[in-house]
Amino acid sequence: MSGTAGGITKRKDLLGLRGVAADEITHILDTAEKFRAVSERRIKKVPTLRGRTVVNLFFEASTRTKTSFDLAAKRLSADGVSISASTSAAKKGETLMDTARNINAMAPDLVVIRHSYAGAAHMLARAFPFSVINAGDGINEHPTQALLDMLTMRRRFGRLEGLTVAIVGDVYHSRVARSNLHGLTTMGARVLLAGPGTMCRDGMASLGTPDAPVEVRHSIDEVLEEADVVMMLRIQRERLAPAMLASSREYSRLYGLDMDRLKRAGEGTLVMHPGPINRGVEMSPDVADHHSQSAIMEQVTNGVAVRMALMYLLLEGESDDATA
Amino acid sequence: MSGTAGGITKRKDLLGLRGVAADEITHILDTAEKFRAVSERRIKKVPTLRGRTVVNLFFEASTRTKTSFDLAAKRLSADGVSISASTSAAKKGETLMDTARNINAMAPDLVVIRHSYAGAAHMLARAFPFSVINAGDGINEHPTQALLDMLTMRRRFGRLEGLTVAIVGDVYHSRVARSNLHGLTTMGARVLLAGPGTMCRDGMASLGTPDAPVEVRHSIDEVLEEADVVMMLRIQRERLAPAMLASSREYSRLYGLDMDRLKRAGEGTLVMHPGPINRGVEMSPDVADHHSQSAIMEQVTNGVAVRMALMYLLLEGESDDATA
Amino acid sequence: MSGTAGGITKRKDLLGLRGVAADEITHILDTAEKFRAVSERRIKKVPTLRGRTVVNLFFEASTRTKTSFDLAAKRLSADGVSISASTSAAKKGETLMDTARNINAMAPDLVVIRHSYAGAAHMLARAFPFSVINAGDGINEHPTQALLDMLTMRRRFGRLEGLTVAIVGDVYHSRVARSNLHGLTTMGARVLLAGPGTMCRDGMASLGTPDAPVEVRHSIDEVLEEADVVMMLRIQRERLAPAMLASSREYSRLYGLDMDRLKRAGEGTLVMHPGPINRGVEMSPDVADHHSQSAIMEQVTNGVAVRMALMYLLLEGESDDATA
Repeated sequence: MSGTAGGITKRKDLLGLRGVAADEITHILDTAEKFRAVSERRIKKVPTLRGRTVVNLFFEASTRTKTSFDLAAKRLSADGVSISASTSAAKKGETLMDTARNINAMAPDLVVIRHSYAGAAHMLARAFPFSVINAGDGINEHPTQALLDMLTMRRRFGRLEGLTVAIVGDVYHSRVARSNLHGLTTMGARVLLAGPGTMCRDGMASLGTPDAPVEVRHSIDEVLEEADVVMMLRIQRERLAPAMLASSREYSRLYGLDMDRLKRAGEGTLVMHPGPINRGVEMSPDVADHHSQSAIMEQVTNGVAVRMALMYLLLEGESDDATA
Repeated sequence: MSGTAGGITKRKDLLGLRGVAADEITHILDTAEKFRAVSERRIKKVPTLRGRTVVNLFFEASTRTKTSFDLAAKRLSADGVSISASTSAAKKGETLMDTARNINAMAPDLVVIRHSYAGAAHMLARAFPFSVINAGDGINEHPTQALLDMLTMRRRFGRLEGLTVAIVGDVYHSRVARSNLHGLTTMGARVLLAGPGTMCRDGMASLGTPDAPVEVRHSIDEVLEEADVVMMLRIQRERLAPAMLASSREYSRLYGLDMDRLKRAGEGTLVMHPGPINRGVEMSPDVADHHSQSAIMEQVTNGVAVRMALMYLLLEGESDDATA
Repeated sequence: MSGTAGGITKRKDLLGLRGVAADEITHILDTAEKFRAVSERRIKKVPTLRGRTVVNLFFEASTRTKTSFDLAAKRLSADGVSISASTSAAKKGETLMDTARNINAMAPDLVVIRHSYAGAAHMLARAFPFSVINAGDGINEHPTQALLDMLTMRRRFGRLEGLTVAIVGDVYHSRVARSNLHGLTTMGARVLLAGPGTMCRDGMASLGTPDAPVEVRHSIDEVLEEADVVMMLRIQRERLAPAMLASSREYSRLYGLDMDRLKRAGEGTLVMHPGPINRGVEMSPDVADHHSQSAIMEQVTNGVAVRMALMYLLLEGESDDATA
């Protein structure tokens, strides 16, 4: 299950960005650039994964991510099957491992898994010969989101090294933040975190290095002026408990991004959000929709490209004509 | 996004039949005739839309219509993804426009939308570059249903002009009736409407023209003798409120089609229904199932053909070998 | 709809194994062997059913079986559509026959149906020209499961004739048991049944023949020593009512398979289960997972092969290059 391509060891799975080296991240992003072009063609399809089986195994609701993986597989000509919690044998009490064993017996090449349990993707990757892409496991990692975020930044700024990226909101409970933290520091970006104390703990600063420091602040205004990119996290309304923050209005006042704050940040600041957006909570509608500084839809476009690249790299390794 | 084919301007979307000219309707029906033959072959597939992305976005439950669009896309070799309300980010409170923006960022060629909001399809068509087919928006329009109805009538009678078509039931709340009214009057058919006063208002007569009059009656017996086609609408049981009609038995007695009534209508009268049928309410089981005068299953067959034709016309315009 | 191939009449449907002759079962298993190899290739796809329409119509929850049919259709290059009860017009009160009539009007080649009503598949097969595969109808039959079970046994033992197969648990309510009983006795195997009296009635012995006897016992220990294969049935927890058995613990003690019992059965005894397993009820986890005597995952692998073989045999009859 291993090989080398351009000096990079071929991997079986992508479970997280923790520990993934900078040259491998660069290689994934370079490959995604090529696949991005496929979706811009009239005929958005290449025969790369014809006859390969990709299983989408989603134990949590998702439109955007599931559709993105779905389209990525179809545009690579793979055969896809989707299994979602609501229609699965989960109703009959079958465990994740039993479900995975059964899938494995049907000879899949790749399983894309989203699960509320941190470690679900690792469990599958260790136990089975098929490739695994982690599409979000509890509060642990969501590596394809971070890769599409980094692709979006790199396309806008031409580089990741030396960028200052602010991540604002419930950093602690966010798998998106965690994967971005690992990826961005590996690529030499500086990361500023801002959020309520219960959601953004001081200890997170220890994830930084001298070349890629991580700094924890407790106000959005403290990070906006320095940031090249401000990544607003989705707030889980159920976490806005009395002990944490009075209400979503209070949250919005302290940590929400509106036009006033964006103006103070400056015209060069790029706004990102993993979606779906709680309009009026973490971000005002005008910031989300109308501003040329928002890269939110580019993130979605880049998501399909990153997922095509990963499916190709994990299943096929390298060849010259992948996007032909 | 425009061009001409046989004198007809190429359109980006099909949102309704209101305002669609007679020669364009004729052209769609002629094209559907050609695609109808594809589904009669052993190999029911043409490469016409290979590599194009069709998204089925259904916010209301549907078997027949969704499966029909699904099969139409597959038989044209398009890549299809289905997003239904129950599995979508609608659960997380994402709005229709946010969902559509995200879909748009994944480079779809065509979005088929069904939504309870009258105007949903228009909203998408105005805002996005992808083509839109309205698969039913609230009580507004359901144009592919009316086109398949007209194809069914034209195949049986050889023409639409001069036909007398009775539409019976809850006309007011029916998007099927509304699209048929627009389409049939444009094609020069005479339309008789019959239903309870709350469901079939006198003002609807104003939709007619001297060449294609619309007449409102309040008894099924008044329209049956004159009609070449009697189109029975599905009754929404929840609308049979005390203030409107006593019960479904009462409704059935006054507006239901049974064998006695069909006999009085005469052997040449064609029975249609958009489905699914409430047996024993708007139509007796023997009329629905066994009679040679029922065209209900032909309607379903023609539905796949009409949808293939529209997908082809919206995405590809014209070419000689679409069904080869 | 009929023809002959190797002396076997071509059939339109597979509704059950009752009445299916030994040479036809052998022919299906031989064909499945060939298709098994397709799923072992890198490119797991053959063009056999390109342009043919396969409808999966599931009125009961299922992961394994539905995914297995899905993959079988995809690996044969068929166009598949799935209709499940939760998203269908069943919500609007449409009957099974109405749903089937509508599907029929869309020109399917094959409908795979699972339904809680014993006889649902037969109803469709009689009424419509499309081919039908019964994927489980109430407590009646589940023939593809029995065929995959027999393929698994034949691969391990090289034969079915003369094997002693124990079926343990709620035999009476099990469509898996019923199909296996028909198939195994036809192939000349001896069948031992064991289960509580309410779930395993003495009268079932009458299904046997002198060459393939069926014997009813009431303890698992009575059958284990004689069995070459022990097939543990899934227990429906809701059937463990007070009148039948005290509890699942009681059931497990009397009829569950644990390592002690397996050791007494001997190393040559093969353990099978149709899944999903109730761990700790009908089978202990160590028996299910770790033992080289378990064929449970092979059953799943063989399921895809058997379903590919049946789709091919029902739709295409014979040709030399089906798996090329």
